[in-house]
Amino acid sequence: MAFEFNVIAQDSGSQAKAATFTTPHGTIETPCFMPVGTRATVKGITVDELEEVDAQIILSNTYHLYLRPGAELIAEAGGLHAFMNWNRPILTDSGGFQVFSLKDTLKLTREGLSFASIVDGTKHFWTPASNMDIQHKLGADIIMQLDQCPPIPSTRDEVASAVGLSAHWLEGCLQAHEPHRERQALFPIVQGGIELDLRLESIERIMQLEERFGTHPGFGIGGYSVGEPHEVMFETLPKVAAALPQDRPHYLMGVGNPTTLVRAVGMGIDMFDCVLPTRTGRMGTAFSSEGRLNLRNARFAHDFTPLDPECDCKVCRGYTRSYLRHLVKSDEMLGAILLSYHNLYYLLNLMRKVREAIIEGRYGEFLESWMASPAADDY
Amino acid sequence: MAFEFNVIAQDSGSQAKAATFTTPHGTIETPCFMPVGTRATVKGITVDELEEVDAQIILSNTYHLYLRPGAELIAEAGGLHAFMNWNRPILTDSGGFQVFSLKDTLKLTREGLSFASIVDGTKHFWTPASNMDIQHKLGADIIMQLDQCPPIPSTRDEVASAVGLSAHWLEGCLQAHEPHRERQALFPIVQGGIELDLRLESIERIMQLEERFGTHPGFGIGGYSVGEPHEVMFETLPKVAAALPQDRPHYLMGVGNPTTLVRAVGMGIDMFDCVLPTRTGRMGTAFSSEGRLNLRNARFAHDFTPLDPECDCKVCRGYTRSYLRHLVKSDEMLGAILLSYHNLYYLLNLMRKVREAIIEGRYGEFLESWMASPAADDY
Repeated sequence: MAFEFNVIAQDSGSQAKAATFTTPHGTIETPCFMPVGTRATVKGITVDELEEVDAQIILSNTYHLYLRPGAELIAEAGGLHAFMNWNRPILTDSGGFQVFSLKDTLKLTREGLSFASIVDGTKHFWTPASNMDIQHKLGADIIMQLDQCPPIPSTRDEVASAVGLSAHWLEGCLQAHEPHRERQALFPIVQGGIELDLRLESIERIMQLEERFGTHPGFGIGGYSVGEPHEVMFETLPKVAAALPQDRPHYLMGVGNPTTLVRAVGMGIDMFDCVLPTRTGRMGTAFSSEGRLNLRNARFAHDFTPLDPECDCKVCRGYTRSYLRHLVKSDEMLGAILLSYHNLYYLLNLMRKVREAIIEGRYGEFLESWMASPAADDY
Repeated sequence: MAFEFNVIAQDSGSQAKAATFTTPHGTIETPCFMPVGTRATVKGITVDELEEVDAQIILSNTYHLYLRPGAELIAEAGGLHAFMNWNRPILTDSGGFQVFSLKDTLKLTREGLSFASIVDGTKHFWTPASNMDIQHKLGADIIMQLDQCPPIPSTRDEVASAVGLSAHWLEGCLQAHEPHRERQALFPIVQGGIELDLRLESIERIMQLEERFGTHPGFGIGGYSVGEPHEVMFETLPKVAAALPQDRPHYLMGVGNPTTLVRAVGMGIDMFDCVLPTRTGRMGTAFSSEGRLNLRNARFAHDFTPLDPECDCKVCRGYTRSYLRHLVKSDEMLGAILLSYHNLYYLLNLMRKVREAIIEGRYGEFLESWMASPAADDY
């Protein structure tokens, strides 16, 4: 198998595990956070800086790349890695999540999705097979199935129907992906909203397909963090992760709050992604050991201490809150750049510390001291 | 003398010279280009990147810093170097140039300038002494006198009056600066527009003040490149530079086109500054050995060659025109960042190559081959 997941430590008091996942562009150490590079760039951050903060894998969005510059152009460039000058692993989503948010022009059938481009209004139709074709052209190491992620609130029937359609589409994806299995790992996605029985049904249908298509290299868990309170997610998440095979990675899609990450690892999650660190950075907000800081606040005007005294990133070593506030207040690009950099470092470093704690058998301790810290309010 | 200018090579066929200029924060090799960091940041570029492109000195704008965050706050932070985390030399302008552009609220007297803040409308009054006080608080290695830069077109009388007022203000600046001479170099500014006799009068009045105040460490040449055709500037510029002492640096203010730099060095100019490389970078335009490139142009969509095949900066080594065009078209910050980086590298590297040519006795050759190249149209 081209994609190998090796669990190197299992926490005794929780479902937390430390592992490695091998891909054609390198080995990822999990648990890990994936910075999001929507349009083949993590906003405001160079690839050198991504290596500095030691991002092991990044995520890019199929929907945006498909519309502009187009999957064909990226294939012509030699794939997404060559196009964006990033030689470490990449994961692409299917783009389904973005298409489902285009309510005005969306038409959903059992065969696929039709929608209008936000760039130029042109009509498009995606089937599971054509979506795979796009993701094959992009050439990410990990690709995601086309699925239906129902919004919250949805009725139980709507959620059940999304589970059924997602499983049906998975079959189409697996079929189209068969010749590419050695080069790209296709992750099925568990749906089912906040209803445990539907989540378990989704897993069952995904696992049934292994008989025809072979072992799935990993699993996405979608449809969480779409508006529900986080405690509602935490009720079912550990049971969902426990029902999945433990010898493959579990990727909780679209979640990036520090405390959610720390807790979800204990519930059996290995991978995360979110635009939060860069989006909040551009808005002038920073993660910190003291909780979230809004640099626009006047109390930082004469504060010549580091952004986060407990952080050792280059922003916290080189700059003061006063200077960062000046940049943010002046709408200087460097404000967005430095805060995005710090926020990425903060989450990536947090995951490194969680991993270390798991390996050293003290994840429980780590979680407890995290939850007692001022940073814990950051969901 | 704290500020030492050592000419290490003099071109035989022109006024071009290679030199070093020693400041409290390090030695600058001239001729050199100074990137502009208006609000204590070179737009879109980190200080690490400024060191990567080997900027030896940067310029920052007193007017903007005075309004926000204020000179007192920067003094409290330990000065501009500490505030912005840049440990190499800095030059600040006086801010007079910006104030003179605020025509609606400007009131000019022999004592100074009154104006309203563009940030909050508050009233301000600058005298030569108070302007020096601001620049002392900022703490740059090189500071500029408060002067009057008349716009083009101006009558001969207006230009003559600006020469007189600038010389009068220089006296006030020199007086106020006396106790700071060892820590900061104050450069007088030559005015006189495109009239050679007024330029020479300006120089005479500046030099007369040396009797009372001692040797000037260097000279600014202002009032060029304010709208006149570049050939008009080139008529008087060599005579102006020749009339100044040759054992001190000559700084041509606000000029940054590649070809102007290459030619002006031969006319005796040692230092330049301009927002051009970062401003054009943010607009999606790049300097190159093929001339200026507008990355929005459709012809770059499938162009997988480097931005400038003759450039060895990290942008040209790592990225294609196709990718850069994608970033620019998508309004991604990384487009502005990478093009600004390349443009700065291009000018700084150009100055390094010019300096090398002077030292190796082949500036004339260099100029000739530059003027015959497709890059030469870039004024």
